[in-house]
Amino acid sequence: MEHVRETRWDRKHRLIVEAAAATFLANGYAGTSMDDIAATAAVSKQTVYKHFADKRQLFADVVLATTDQVTATVQMVSAALEDTTNLEQGLSELARSLLTTLMQPELLRLRRLVITTADQFPDIGTAWYRQGFERVLTALAGRFADLAGRGLLQADDPLLAAHHFVGLLLWIPVNQAMFTGDHTSSKADLESYADAAAATFLRAYAPTPADEAAPSTARTRPSTLPADRGSPP
Amino acid sequence: MEHVRETRWDRKHRLIVEAAAATFLANGYAGTSMDDIAATAAVSKQTVYKHFADKRQLFADVVLATTDQVTATVQMVSAALEDTTNLEQGLSELARSLLTTLMQPELLRLRRLVITTADQFPDIGTAWYRQGFERVLTALAGRFADLAGRGLLQADDPLLAAHHFVGLLLWIPVNQAMFTGDHTSSKADLESYADAAAATFLRAYAPTPADEAAPSTARTRPSTLPADRGSPP
Repeated sequence: MEHVRETRWDRKHRLIVEAAAATFLANGYAGTSMDDIAATAAVSKQTVYKHFADKRQLFADVVLATTDQVTATVQMVSAALEDTTNLEQGLSELARSLLTTLMQPELLRLRRLVITTADQFPDIGTAWYRQGFERVLTALAGRFADLAGRGLLQADDPLLAAHHFVGLLLWIPVNQAMFTGDHTSSKADLESYADAAAATFLRAYAPTPADEAAPSTARTRPSTLPADRGSPP
Repeated sequence: MEHVRETRWDRKHRLIVEAAAATFLANGYAGTSMDDIAATAAVSKQTVYKHFADKRQLFADVVLATTDQVTATVQMVSAALEDTTNLEQGLSELARSLLTTLMQPELLRLRRLVITTADQFPDIGTAWYRQGFERVLTALAGRFADLAGRGLLQADDPLLAAHHFVGLLLWIPVNQAMFTGDHTSSKADLESYADAAAATFLRAYAPTPADEAAPSTARTRPSTLPADRGSPP
């Protein structure tokens, strides 16, 4: 097999991006200068400017590059629950995997960095969300649509159901991390949140006996369940 | 009735805090200097330092002062659902009120500010959460415990149920605001999220026919619902 050699240009580009990622995560956007990045990458400032027009462009590149890592999570979600015979167990396992992935300290720091700069660079924040987390939600909605088709869930709006699943799952631990700055949740706590979210989701979205008897009719409990509220943005 | 006169000291103190709040919210912690605050408050920098030892102390004061406003929200939650005859309608109304309150642009900017500085000042972020949002959650848990006592909800862990209610309610619009920097959600969208959250919560936490027949027994659906997972932190 031929070994693909990294060119001198590519190597410097990679070193600059790695240095920028580390520096932005440690010191924030405002606290990072092109000089800092050049020093960390061990290249000249002129070299940094040859690769990136300005700090904003380098920041956008660093932030959006992280959305590539989402592909593995999307594949994990897409493969989940395919042949499950115990739906609650399957949902719990999926919830635990998602939570473990999304609560990684580096991802939490990145989340804080994007939130910090969203007022200043709304386009970067929006793109990060769309290319990142929204792809996970879409994959999850696909799984729920499939389960609804097999009569195992009742979900008229699978994307809304996906938002509800992650809202139940992530609200407590993500807020805790965001507000306290403590990015170390215990495995036992995370598993507890995951199991509670999965069980609650299933109670909300399991077909009722009425659905099972006549799947095409509206749910009877609660009586005023809205039929279609549109997809969340 | 005697009019309570504001002393010269109190007036300057108030002007400094108001100027600091506006400047921190507009420019962040790192982007705000004591000189900026003095200029906005139209006092000398020496006067600012007579009232506050340093920028950090002023920041803590400004952030934690906002938790006073939570009292009105706690009272609103505590008064909700007291004599409701239509639980879904009552939950929807509560959800809409909470969402309208918590999605105020100023509160979203404050939330971003606290998240931004949580790594640097974990004690301020933690105190803000505990004195603010956690009081709302506790009030909500009290309402759910009351409804469970009246046989209208099935909630073994009312605080967990409160977290689930706000997770279902806030995850979509708060994330959208945090990542896109767009703090203007339409009334129709917010009402749609609120109604969906209330309906989903009620499906998850409504007593099942089995609960109604024999309230002291465990739920029969799902079969492996954990009995007690402890309160979230």
